[in-house]
Amino acid sequence: MGVVVALEDKQPSPQIEGLVSLVAPDMERVNAVILARTGSDVTMIPEVANHLISSGGKRLRPMLTLATAGLCAYPGEGHVKLAAAVEFMHTATLLHDDVVDESDMRRGKLAARMLWGNEASVLVGDFLLGQAFKMMVEVGSLPCLDVLSSAAAVIAEGEVMQLSAAKDTQTTEDDYLAVIRAKTAALFAAACEVGPILALRGKGEIAACRSYGLNLGIAFQLIDDALDYGGSSAKLGKNVGDDFREGKITLPVVLAFRRGAESERDFWRRTLEKGEIADGDLENALALMRKHRALDDCVERARHYGAMARDALGIFAPSAWKQAMLDAVEFAVARAH
Amino acid sequence: MGVVVALEDKQPSPQIEGLVSLVAPDMERVNAVILARTGSDVTMIPEVANHLISSGGKRLRPMLTLATAGLCAYPGEGHVKLAAAVEFMHTATLLHDDVVDESDMRRGKLAARMLWGNEASVLVGDFLLGQAFKMMVEVGSLPCLDVLSSAAAVIAEGEVMQLSAAKDTQTTEDDYLAVIRAKTAALFAAACEVGPILALRGKGEIAACRSYGLNLGIAFQLIDDALDYGGSSAKLGKNVGDDFREGKITLPVVLAFRRGAESERDFWRRTLEKGEIADGDLENALALMRKHRALDDCVERARHYGAMARDALGIFAPSAWKQAMLDAVEFAVARAH
Repeated sequence: MGVVVALEDKQPSPQIEGLVSLVAPDMERVNAVILARTGSDVTMIPEVANHLISSGGKRLRPMLTLATAGLCAYPGEGHVKLAAAVEFMHTATLLHDDVVDESDMRRGKLAARMLWGNEASVLVGDFLLGQAFKMMVEVGSLPCLDVLSSAAAVIAEGEVMQLSAAKDTQTTEDDYLAVIRAKTAALFAAACEVGPILALRGKGEIAACRSYGLNLGIAFQLIDDALDYGGSSAKLGKNVGDDFREGKITLPVVLAFRRGAESERDFWRRTLEKGEIADGDLENALALMRKHRALDDCVERARHYGAMARDALGIFAPSAWKQAMLDAVEFAVARAH
Repeated sequence: MGVVVALEDKQPSPQIEGLVSLVAPDMERVNAVILARTGSDVTMIPEVANHLISSGGKRLRPMLTLATAGLCAYPGEGHVKLAAAVEFMHTATLLHDDVVDESDMRRGKLAARMLWGNEASVLVGDFLLGQAFKMMVEVGSLPCLDVLSSAAAVIAEGEVMQLSAAKDTQTTEDDYLAVIRAKTAALFAAACEVGPILALRGKGEIAACRSYGLNLGIAFQLIDDALDYGGSSAKLGKNVGDDFREGKITLPVVLAFRRGAESERDFWRRTLEKGEIADGDLENALALMRKHRALDDCVERARHYGAMARDALGIFAPSAWKQAMLDAVEFAVARAH
């Protein structure tokens, strides 16, 4: 626990800017591809797609494809289309997720489904998925197609898994990890794996990049889940409590539930399983999380996966790309403070 | 118009059995692949997938992949997985369509979304799409991947197009054709195109098979749309009127609307655009269709596309495969009687 404090106090503020500026020239081309490929005579398609795509997502996933291509000194062009394909896969998932979760908001804006209806969200998601595959096919690397199409199936499987486990306070940390590995980390892993594959690197480097992405993805989702309860500080703020209101069983809940007394478990069962949420319940949830250090330990777990991500890159020689990717891990974890 | 009568009276009952028995050995393997690939530790996935897959669809699309492979004497194995992939793409579309259309029934059974919820239909559809792409990648033919991934994007585009044009009685026959070309015929075309591609046939034969599939797909959808109003007889029966109740603008409506008086157009606007449907309205719709020969001419249009499909196969030498494919066109059209 002292470690957390030490890191909070002493570590230089970790920066994502290194990565952002290294990928900037390629990212400009990715953005052009994204814009071109959401075009359609069916006007609803660019409208819906661009609502989400232009809404200020960080584009972390395509950045990772560009970064691993850079790390592996890939001299070609394929990484640009694959990065755009990865972002399309991600956007399609978000569109479908909003329908599944019946979410009203996404990235601080009204969810597409609130503006154009569930129908449009489902179908434009399908369109983006189709375009993603078209772009991958254009790049023409069967191993990359294998990695990305496998990820698509695993992501959907993870979403169904999450649906099956929804509102179940019996969920174990392992169950939870299985879900986020599939629904979040699989795409991070695939985004990172295609870089070295395009660059025709050996098994070891491909596996290293995949491992970096997978563990970064897990860390990223853990931090997201902690942030949904206000992060380490567990304070009420903007967007805090969305998961609570939707009855999502994330790691902070799993930890608080398992560490709590039976009366506390009754609270979690009432609020999350039965969805009976009254005034003051979110505050109580935050208090229980503070009491059991659920959020600190969620961040601590994230730090563990972040460490695995960083170590995975150990086999690569020092370079600006490597350093930027290492810093990105620290940045992802530090968001929770 | 006399032609329709002549055909009804004199033509030997067209058979689909020729095609069914020719593809039977391969289809058994396709079914095994389908069963294996809907397997998942996430139990909801095989449940939902098999509910639809085992519900007695005709498997016409995978049959076409097997048939064109047979027609082109393809000696390999890839057609089996591609046929399964085509069926998965189709099933995914049905799952998503039910959510988009808010349908209660599918193939005479409760729609999956009624049993497992919209969420499961969206996500299991995504899973099947992911599995479809995985299988295509395993087959390893980039030109086939190109054809099928392009179809996936076009299908989704067609669905969005349909959504945009929904309940709009201004829809022209051309608008309608653009929609069904994209949402239905594109997959028929792709299913047929991959056969000759796998068999390494030349451009002419690939284009011929594609044209066969495209036109058969259009004919097939036209007949489906006529059947939804009872086919040529325009009689009430099982499942008659689903499109009417959902306000779908299909060719029979386009024709009846354009051929009708202003008072009749008011009727179509009230029932389909505003969705104000009262007792007797379906009967009145059927009467208007009879009056304007809307269903007969819808079937007549289908016959035109059917003829194009048959002629497309002209460049192939006579064979059992060719004959079965020609008969299949006649079968598809004759369903309306």
